Amino acid sequence: MSASASYEALSVETLPERLKGVAALASQVGADHAMWQVQEVGDGNLNLVFIVTGPEGKAVVKQALPYVRLVGDSWPLPLYRAFFEYHALTRQAARAPGSVPEIFYFDEVQALIVMEFLSPHLILRRKLIAGDRVDGLAEFLGKFCARTAFRGSELSMKSGDKKADVALFAGNVDIPAITEALVFTDPYFSAEMNHHTEGLDPVVKRLRSDVELKVKVQQALQRFVSNTETMVHGDLHSGSIMSTDRESRVIDPEFAQYGPMGFDIGMLCANFLMAYFSQPAHRGEDLADYQEWILGVIEEVCATFETEFRHLWKTKRTGILYPACLFEDQGHDSSPACDAVLAGIWRDAWAVCGIEMHRRCLSLAHNADFEDIADPAVRAPLEARNLLMGAELIHEADRLTDASAVCDIARDFNGKDVL
Amino acid sequence: MSASASYEALSVETLPERLKGVAALASQVGADHAMWQVQEVGDGNLNLVFIVTGPEGKAVVKQALPYVRLVGDSWPLPLYRAFFEYHALTRQAARAPGSVPEIFYFDEVQALIVMEFLSPHLILRRKLIAGDRVDGLAEFLGKFCARTAFRGSELSMKSGDKKADVALFAGNVDIPAITEALVFTDPYFSAEMNHHTEGLDPVVKRLRSDVELKVKVQQALQRFVSNTETMVHGDLHSGSIMSTDRESRVIDPEFAQYGPMGFDIGMLCANFLMAYFSQPAHRGEDLADYQEWILGVIEEVCATFETEFRHLWKTKRTGILYPACLFEDQGHDSSPACDAVLAGIWRDAWAVCGIEMHRRCLSLAHNADFEDIADPAVRAPLEARNLLMGAELIHEADRLTDASAVCDIARDFNGKDVL
Repeated sequence: MSASASYEALSVETLPERLKGVAALASQVGADHAMWQVQEVGDGNLNLVFIVTGPEGKAVVKQALPYVRLVGDSWPLPLYRAFFEYHALTRQAARAPGSVPEIFYFDEVQALIVMEFLSPHLILRRKLIAGDRVDGLAEFLGKFCARTAFRGSELSMKSGDKKADVALFAGNVDIPAITEALVFTDPYFSAEMNHHTEGLDPVVKRLRSDVELKVKVQQALQRFVSNTETMVHGDLHSGSIMSTDRESRVIDPEFAQYGPMGFDIGMLCANFLMAYFSQPAHRGEDLADYQEWILGVIEEVCATFETEFRHLWKTKRTGILYPACLFEDQGHDSSPACDAVLAGIWRDAWAVCGIEMHRRCLSLAHNADFEDIADPAVRAPLEARNLLMGAELIHEADRLTDASAVCDIARDFNGKDVL
Repeated sequence: MSASASYEALSVETLPERLKGVAALASQVGADHAMWQVQEVGDGNLNLVFIVTGPEGKAVVKQALPYVRLVGDSWPLPLYRAFFEYHALTRQAARAPGSVPEIFYFDEVQALIVMEFLSPHLILRRKLIAGDRVDGLAEFLGKFCARTAFRGSELSMKSGDKKADVALFAGNVDIPAITEALVFTDPYFSAEMNHHTEGLDPVVKRLRSDVELKVKVQQALQRFVSNTETMVHGDLHSGSIMSTDRESRVIDPEFAQYGPMGFDIGMLCANFLMAYFSQPAHRGEDLADYQEWILGVIEEVCATFETEFRHLWKTKRTGILYPACLFEDQGHDSSPACDAVLAGIWRDAWAVCGIEMHRRCLSLAHNADFEDIADPAVRAPLEARNLLMGAELIHEADRLTDASAVCDIARDFNGKDVL
C-alpha cells in the first residue's frame, strides 16, 4: 500500500490485497497473504478492528473511520485521531513499559495501526460483568496511571519537550470535544442525543437543579481543557483495558491530550464503581464477595498510584517543578510538596469520577454494565444509586482524599433504596 | 530590506539605509530616509529600541537581540521572541482594543517590529518613582487584564481556535523559561545570578526556611507552566506600561504564553505594592497622600477587573465553559459559577503577586523603585517590608479575595520595622 494513496476503509475482503506489502504485518502473520484470514471484531464506537490470522501468527489492524460508528456518517470525525493514538501509544510504552500493545506499523494517510494481537485477553468490562477476577489488575493500573501522570509532566520532562508535546496534541481537537460535550456538559441539560432509563426522571431533575453541582462540574471541565499537566489516556474505562486472568494491557488512547494528572484514575475508578453498582443484576450467591473484590481493586489502584507516584517523586524528579535545590539540597524534606500535588490529583480525580458516573447513565454512550440489564425496573434503581453517589463525589471532591472513604460511600449507597 | 536576509542587529547608523524600503515605516516618518534621525533608547534587558524621526512623524523600531542585554552575549536568547511579541500584540489589540501600540510592520527574520511612537508617554515605573499621577490608569489596567483574560480563554474562544493558539505559543520556550527560573525558583535558593541588599540576610534565610511557602510557590509554578487558561502578557510590570497624565498603553508582551488568568493582574499589583513600599525614600510631604493614591489604584484595578469580567461573563460568554444551556436556559443564575472562577483567579493572582515581590529584591532583575535608593541602609528596611508582605500573600492567597484586605496588609507592613 502506497503511503500517498488516499484514505479508503478496509474490509475483510480487501485487507489482504491492500496490506500484503506491509512487511511489519507479514513478519507477524506470514508473507503469503493468500493464507491470511481476516475477522472484523470492532465493537467500539469509532473504528474498524481486524484480526489477521496467518500461518505464522496473528496481528491486529485498527483503522479509524471518518465518522462515529455508533451514530453513523451523520457525525463525521477526523481520521487524524489515528495519528494521536499512535503517538500516545509510543509515549505510554516509554513512560509505562509493558502497559500497551506493541506497535508494528503506522500509516497516517490510511489512519491505520498494525499492533500486537493480545490473547487470551478479553475486554475487562466483559470480565467484570461475568464476575471474573484478574490477578495483579490493581497494581498494573495504579502503576500505569502514576507512571504516565508523572513522566508526562514537568515533574519529569524537560520544559521544551513538554511544550512541544503539548503543541502536538493540541491538534487533537475533535476527539477531546466529544469528552467536553458528552462527559462534562450533556448530562446536565436535555441534550439531543441523551437517553436514560425510564424511572430516573426524578434523579435527573435533581442533578440538573443542583447549581452548585453544575458549577463544580464545569470547573472540572475548565481544568480538563486548560490544565495540561500530563498526557492523559483520556478514555480509560474498563472497555479500554484487556486482561487475561493475570495480565492486563491498556488500549485505545485516541482521546489522548495533555490534561489533569487525576483525569485517568478518576475515570477508571468510576468504571469500577459502575461495575460495582450493576452487580446485583449480574451475580448470584457470590454477589457480596465479588462486589468487595471490586472495591478492593479501587482501593489498591489508588494505593499503588500513591506509592508509585511517591517513589518516582523521590527517585526521578528531573523536571523544573519542585526542584531539589529548593528542598533536599537545603536539608528540607519535599514530602509536603508531594502531598500537596497528590491532594490536587485526588481532588480532580474524584470530581471526574463522579462526572463519568453521571454521563454513562445520562448522556449518549452508556456502558454494558448497566445496559446489559434488560429490565428497566431492575436497572433504574441500580443506576440511581450510581448517579447519586456521583453527585456526592463531585460535591465532596475537595474533602475526599482517601479511596477507602470512597468505597465506604459506595457500600452505603449499595444498601439504599434511593428511587 | 529583503525578508530573506539573515539577521543582523541594526544600529543608529545603519537603520535608515537598511529600512528605507519598508513602506510602512516610510509612510509614518517620510520617504526620504536621508532625513531620518535615529535614536537608540532601549533601557530594557533584552532588545534594541530605536526612535526614528522624519519630516512627517515618528515611529519606533524594536529589534530583538540574540542574547540577554542585561547579562551580555554569555546568555543567548532566541530571536523568535519577536514573533511571539508580534502575535501577542495583534491578539491584545483585538481582545482589548486601544490597549497596545499600533503595529505597522513585522519582519520575522530580522526579529523586528515597527510600531507607533507613543508621546508624551513615559514608562509608568518612572512616573511612580517621580510621584506622578495618571488619570484613568486603574480603569485602563483593570479592563486590559479582564478583557485579555476572558477573551483568550474557552469562556470566549472556540475550542479549536484556543488549542491552535496554545500550540502556537507553546513554541515560546526560552522566554517563559526565564520566568520559570528567575521568578518562581531562584529567589528561594542561592542561585548564581541572585543578589540582594546588604542587611536582608535574615529575611532571605527566613523565606528559604519556610517549606510551606516554597511548596505554595512551586504549586504556583506548576499552574504557570501547565494551566493554559488564557494568553497572558507574561511580564506586566510598571516598566511594561507607558502613560501620559491621562492615557496609558501596555507594551513588550514578548513573554506571552497561555497561562493562568490571574497571572498578569497578580504581577501588576506586585509592582504597585513595590512602588508603595519604596515611596518613603522618594517622597517628601506628599508621602502619605501618594502612597494612598497607589493603594487606591490597586483597589480600583481589582474592582474594575471584577466588574468588567462579570460584564463579559453576562454578555460575551460564547465558549464551551459554563454554557447557558446549563444555567440561564434552565432558569438558573450563573453568578455562582462566575464567583467560583473569580475566586480561582484571585487565588492565583495573590500568590503570583507575593512571588513577584520576592524575586524583584532577591533574584537577577531588580526594579528601579528600590534600586534607585542609593543608600542600602535606607533600601533594606523598605525591601524587607515588601518581602515579608510577599510571604504573607503567598501563604494567605487561598483566603484573600479582596484587594482592600491586601491594601490593609500593605498599610500594616508600611508602619512596621521588620528588620
